[in-house]
Amino acid sequence: MITVLSGGVGAARLIRALNLVTDPRDITAVVNVGDDLVLHGLTICPDLDTISYTLAGLNNDELGWGLAGETWRVMEELARLGGAAWFALGDRDLATHLYRTQRLFEGATKTEVTHELCERWGVRTRLLPVTNDPIATTFDTEIGPLSFQDYFVRHHHDVVVNAITVQGALTATVTDEALSALEQSSRIVIAPSNPLISIDPILQVGNVRELLASRRRDVVAVSPLVNGAALKGPADRLMRELGHNATSVGIADFYQDLAGTLVIDQADRELATQIESRGMKVHVTTTIMANPDDARRLATVVLA
Amino acid sequence: MITVLSGGVGAARLIRALNLVTDPRDITAVVNVGDDLVLHGLTICPDLDTISYTLAGLNNDELGWGLAGETWRVMEELARLGGAAWFALGDRDLATHLYRTQRLFEGATKTEVTHELCERWGVRTRLLPVTNDPIATTFDTEIGPLSFQDYFVRHHHDVVVNAITVQGALTATVTDEALSALEQSSRIVIAPSNPLISIDPILQVGNVRELLASRRRDVVAVSPLVNGAALKGPADRLMRELGHNATSVGIADFYQDLAGTLVIDQADRELATQIESRGMKVHVTTTIMANPDDARRLATVVLA
Repeated sequence: MITVLSGGVGAARLIRALNLVTDPRDITAVVNVGDDLVLHGLTICPDLDTISYTLAGLNNDELGWGLAGETWRVMEELARLGGAAWFALGDRDLATHLYRTQRLFEGATKTEVTHELCERWGVRTRLLPVTNDPIATTFDTEIGPLSFQDYFVRHHHDVVVNAITVQGALTATVTDEALSALEQSSRIVIAPSNPLISIDPILQVGNVRELLASRRRDVVAVSPLVNGAALKGPADRLMRELGHNATSVGIADFYQDLAGTLVIDQADRELATQIESRGMKVHVTTTIMANPDDARRLATVVLA
Repeated sequence: MITVLSGGVGAARLIRALNLVTDPRDITAVVNVGDDLVLHGLTICPDLDTISYTLAGLNNDELGWGLAGETWRVMEELARLGGAAWFALGDRDLATHLYRTQRLFEGATKTEVTHELCERWGVRTRLLPVTNDPIATTFDTEIGPLSFQDYFVRHHHDVVVNAITVQGALTATVTDEALSALEQSSRIVIAPSNPLISIDPILQVGNVRELLASRRRDVVAVSPLVNGAALKGPADRLMRELGHNATSVGIADFYQDLAGTLVIDQADRELATQIESRGMKVHVTTTIMANPDDARRLATVVLA
């Protein structure tokens, strides 16, 4: 059994890669919910949806989010009404959020709804929100406090961030399912997701950070930075703005108490010695997953 | 200034008729919200939407509800997910509910949101929910208690009803706007809507019933029954099941304390004497509004 700490796109791609070399049912993803939001009354879980859409083969590769073959009737009409159409929700995607919101209203947990949706889509990897409680990653920025999606989507993560806070994390409870996955899996993988806004919100819930620290030998992190840059999103910029080294060495500093091993890209191979000096083992491979062969190779390294 | 107590379809058609013979800005509709619902997290106001869609010329005449030229992408996908697709919400219609729900979440009242939507659609008649507080018309039936839409849509109003209750009506407050419309208009019209499930929930809020009784001389009701049958919906059946006379005489009995005048269809002309014996004036005309001439004639009678 493998457990993957997961944000959105980077994690989805890593889990898809792991599925190439192992039984999907042996993989559990413990997923960030810090960027979940309620918009138009709908509960939206971007990271859970990105992973399940990707694993179901339904993801929209052109956009990098949402569903393939999507239409936009509702958003077109909402824009005409002067509604909040800046957060684009496709018609098929909306059905997911309607389904989830109604089930939550009926008393189901986020964990249960996620399971139901995955069953429907034939996703065999187990996806678990780290908590069923509401948590919210928020940003203190140069233009004032912003919610996650205000920062990420509305402002295209193009404002200077002074601090990140995960509201509710202190009092949120890790679900029993996520806890036992983290305790019982033979390996814990930290996906190449944004450390500050995808992985850290998971670590801040309950005792996840302490639990990982206690299992440090079994924890493998995959660096999301290659040659000082993120493939997608603001990880490098945020690392710099918040005083971290925006390289795989900075990633090592960030994870050194939690992960015994860091997987870095070939482009960063000259950083290996510095990282090893933090007491971490280093594996060098191609981390970008540009094709199935690279994906398979990365997965093999992560599981080795 | 004319105020119309309004349910959905019947009221929408009467207001459209009134708009043919008077300035739409001189008409205010005080609208039932007892069949409003929250589904998928969305606040849906069927009667307000039916009226505004109809007055905007956007209504779907084939279906009898919803918007013309509608598509069903979201519902198709929701059905695939096993979601609650029994309450059909078209893609364009959904945009209305998303807009409303988000604005309510932001602190707007139902009255304010209705005004915004009507502005957007160019509806000049003023539509006012009778209350901004939640009220819910519910049914005690042969198969147990049912919510409005469970009774009306899910069970196609085809179960025996023993009692109707408007939850929350006692503590709900009539909005200032609705109150002053009812107090200050020269005439109050009770639309040919279902008396039991469209009009009565309005009457039960706050002091609306007393207010109408005090203005009985200025109140004109249009009978929704023609020859003992409703044009649409379960008004006749419900009248019978709840011990009323399912004819225009029964309508007169129901409204006699509130309305000084009843407008009935030519088919019911032989009931005029019985109705007059209740102390009501009777006007006989064609109430069915099958064409613009009939609609105009009815409107003229109602305003006379």
